[in-house]
Amino acid sequence: MKSVFFEDYVEGSTRTTGGRTITETDIVLHAGQTGDFYPHHMDAEWCKSQEFKQRIAHGTLVFSVAVGMTAGEINPEAFSYGYDRLRFIRPVFIGDTLHVKVTVKEKRDYAKRPDHGMVVELCEVFNQQEQLVLVCEHLLLTRKKAQDVLDQSQLPRR
Amino acid sequence: MKSVFFEDYVEGSTRTTGGRTITETDIVLHAGQTGDFYPHHMDAEWCKSQEFKQRIAHGTLVFSVAVGMTAGEINPEAFSYGYDRLRFIRPVFIGDTLHVKVTVKEKRDYAKRPDHGMVVELCEVFNQQEQLVLVCEHLLLTRKKAQDVLDQSQLPRR
Amino acid sequence: MKSVFFEDYVEGSTRTTGGRTITETDIVLHAGQTGDFYPHHMDAEWCKSQEFKQRIAHGTLVFSVAVGMTAGEINPEAFSYGYDRLRFIRPVFIGDTLHVKVTVKEKRDYAKRPDHGMVVELCEVFNQQEQLVLVCEHLLLTRKKAQDVLDQSQLPRR
Amino acid sequence: MKSVFFEDYVEGSTRTTGGRTITETDIVLHAGQTGDFYPHHMDAEWCKSQEFKQRIAHGTLVFSVAVGMTAGEINPEAFSYGYDRLRFIRPVFIGDTLHVKVTVKEKRDYAKRPDHGMVVELCEVFNQQEQLVLVCEHLLLTRKKAQDVLDQSQLPRR
Amino acid sequence: MKSVFFEDYVEGSTRTTGGRTITETDIVLHAGQTGDFYPHHMDAEWCKSQEFKQRIAHGTLVFSVAVGMTAGEINPEAFSYGYDRLRFIRPVFIGDTLHVKVTVKEKRDYAKRPDHGMVVELCEVFNQQEQLVLVCEHLLLTRKKAQDVLDQSQLPRR
Amino acid sequence: MKSVFFEDYVEGSTRTTGGRTITETDIVLHAGQTGDFYPHHMDAEWCKSQEFKQRIAHGTLVFSVAVGMTAGEINPEAFSYGYDRLRFIRPVFIGDTLHVKVTVKEKRDYAKRPDHGMVVELCEVFNQQEQLVLVCEHLLLTRKKAQDVLDQSQLPRR
Repeated sequence: MKSVFFEDYVEGSTRTTGGRTITETDIVLHAGQTGDFYPHHMDAEWCKSQEFKQRIAHGTLVFSVAVGMTAGEINPEAFSYGYDRLRFIRPVFIGDTLHVKVTVKEKRDYAKRPDHGMVVELCEVFNQQEQLVLVCEHLLLTRKKAQDVLDQSQLPRR
Repeated sequence: MKSVFFEDYVEGSTRTTGGRTITETDIVLHAGQTGDFYPHHMDAEWCKSQEFKQRIAHGTLVFSVAVGMTAGEINPEAFSYGYDRLRFIRPVFIGDTLHVKVTVKEKRDYAKRPDHGMVVELCEVFNQQEQLVLVCEHLLLTRKKAQDVLDQSQLPRR
Repeated sequence: MKSVFFEDYVEGSTRTTGGRTITETDIVLHAGQTGDFYPHHMDAEWCKSQEFKQRIAHGTLVFSVAVGMTAGEINPEAFSYGYDRLRFIRPVFIGDTLHVKVTVKEKRDYAKRPDHGMVVELCEVFNQQEQLVLVCEHLLLTRKKAQDVLDQSQLPRR
Repeated sequence: MKSVFFEDYVEGSTRTTGGRTITETDIVLHAGQTGDFYPHHMDAEWCKSQEFKQRIAHGTLVFSVAVGMTAGEINPEAFSYGYDRLRFIRPVFIGDTLHVKVTVKEKRDYAKRPDHGMVVELCEVFNQQEQLVLVCEHLLLTRKKAQDVLDQSQLPRR
Repeated sequence: MKSVFFEDYVEGSTRTTGGRTITETDIVLHAGQTGDFYPHHMDAEWCKSQEFKQRIAHGTLVFSVAVGMTAGEINPEAFSYGYDRLRFIRPVFIGDTLHVKVTVKEKRDYAKRPDHGMVVELCEVFNQQEQLVLVCEHLLLTRKKAQDVLDQSQLPRR
Repeated sequence: MKSVFFEDYVEGSTRTTGGRTITETDIVLHAGQTGDFYPHHMDAEWCKSQEFKQRIAHGTLVFSVAVGMTAGEINPEAFSYGYDRLRFIRPVFIGDTLHVKVTVKEKRDYAKRPDHGMVVELCEVFNQQEQLVLVCEHLLLTRKKAQDVLDQSQLPRR
């Protein structure tokens, strides 16, 4: 664990994860975990009659795996507040290899807790052809560095 | 499969799913699927020293299971466009039983495809104490019923 | 949940499920669940020397998946009493897509509980070539509609 | 592998398997494999309001595990023809430990293939309190020993 | 269970297991169990750029499966003390079928417990081309047969 | 990925992993992966009659998880050669939380490949009571830093 404070995040900075291949196993396991046995994921015959001709990964599978891939060292100063603008851009097929690019998109104040700020990480998930398949914004509520009780500049002048 | 068109969705209408108990197995499987082995989910000893005193479910697990629980009959006229305002409100512990309330929150036009509209479903996930644990908005891009080629109101007056 | 009473079942009526593709993952998971690691399911080399030239799904896997596929809405008036005449007709291979046809084959009285009757559902499991692979009869012990408190024939004669 | 022919099976002979504890994990995995997420298996809260007060194992889980437990050495002379009279006698709860008693109940001819006979094995599944929880009859189509081309008794007398 | 004592093991004796095919599922499950998501096992694209051009099984997967394959009947007189000289000789690929040859390589005294001896089993794991892929030595601490209370040689001479 | 060469390893240096709780799920999954359904792991009733009174984790499970826990950043200059002196010291029970201490125990030459050396990492696995449960030595065949094309000692003397 290493503390990274609100002030330490730099807007525009990026990091990229390694790759991971989405397998038939992942889809079968995800269906089993979620109970979503829709034919788009489980019925190869029916899929042949559809636009993509093959089974596609669950949106929640791609999202969950992508979020897992971005999990690096734990930052005890931040916790996951939620996600905005999660969009399924392209289908992910069995055998596709995904990687994720994370960009610090924005930093903003968080009114309810002035000692914290919100860091917005843009997560872009790409397949092996560098096509964007999923995008979302991760909201990290992040502690600010402890400040002096009194700000020097606000001290009364003598 | 049963076709439900944009016009068929009624703002304010709700449905509620049955319940599902989140087990230690679910957490272990989700860690295995996502690669997220953070101690919050996997280290019972460390958790004893933290605020909640016990392991908590991954946010992506709760989200994925909740989405799976809302999956009913397939609507061939709609497809999942994405999610907005996904928020983790309260931790989910091993043994908690979740259910989901889905409300048609809003219907709006979708400029890029005038023959479709966007249905916004508010998904609220509750535990067995009726406490809200997760909330999100599901965007369903939904086909409109085929319209007359000419709209009556636009016919030339005589 | 929706109550369906003994009287509501119609002999000869049928319903058909969607499809599900049996994957290598299903076989590996089922071996892991049951401890049945027979070479018919787990040893692709040995299978090459056998009649079917490839691994086949466990009979209990095909049966369990087929039963799961027929599970629709819960009927609180019925419970599963057992199965008769379960037969393995043809092997199921990795990649086969199964669907199930359920026919109300017979309704009969159940002596031990006169307020219930036995509904016999014939379950026929087909592969993507419409070949029958498994058949069984599901026995549903089903509540009869509440009857008049007094049976006419038992009324005191005058 | 060791050949056991039709003639080698002895009516009334029995064997008993070791034990296996049915875990919450088994139920979660079986729901995932079959898609049967009925509240009897998955919703601990709802179960509290029911007769047994707790989740119960799927019938197909108990059956599949029991069949797996009886799988010993492979007999290349027999193959599984099917099951008769599968009955769910008592519920199986999380933590119950099962064992199976197999009895050669009956041997009979099989008209379609005179060189084979049908061995009927009665499988009785017990919990740790020696209560019968499931019973079924396993049909094993088993090769008979090769016979002399000419039966001695039919040889022409000199 | 059948008792096999230290004296019953014969140096040089061998046994060979049946085969088992290593599947993509096994690798995905093992990554999930161990948290080892190294690209050698999970990133098919990256593997294309490496020496073997494809994903390889985890060493601990091959070892665990091989050990499991050698598990026959339980010997209540022996327990697993550990392993020596575990070596990864060749990579195992998806679709390879493994079998194990076990040789009683050595029997030696175990000073700390004179009523036991150490049996060293050499485990050699081969793929379908009879290439050695993994080797290890299994140490079995095994009870000796109960001896006469008095050893003849220690009897007082007259 | 970050290159760490043979010369970079420091004898006596140590690192310690975070913790991970071994669950009933892990044992059930490992039995399913390896086919080892020995009663020590799967039969809670039988275990009550044994020394430890409860189920214990498979040795290969503890080993595999421990190895997975030590997997940090990939070192492209090293590959896993094997393990020595793997010993099962104490049983691991359901609910135990493990962590691993890794010590660079020894560095030695590797005759077959002079441009590589062998790094021996001692892996000690502890439970939550700081009791040693498993120990092994990991052999890492590690590239040495590129040397001058000409070795001084081989230069022609003048």
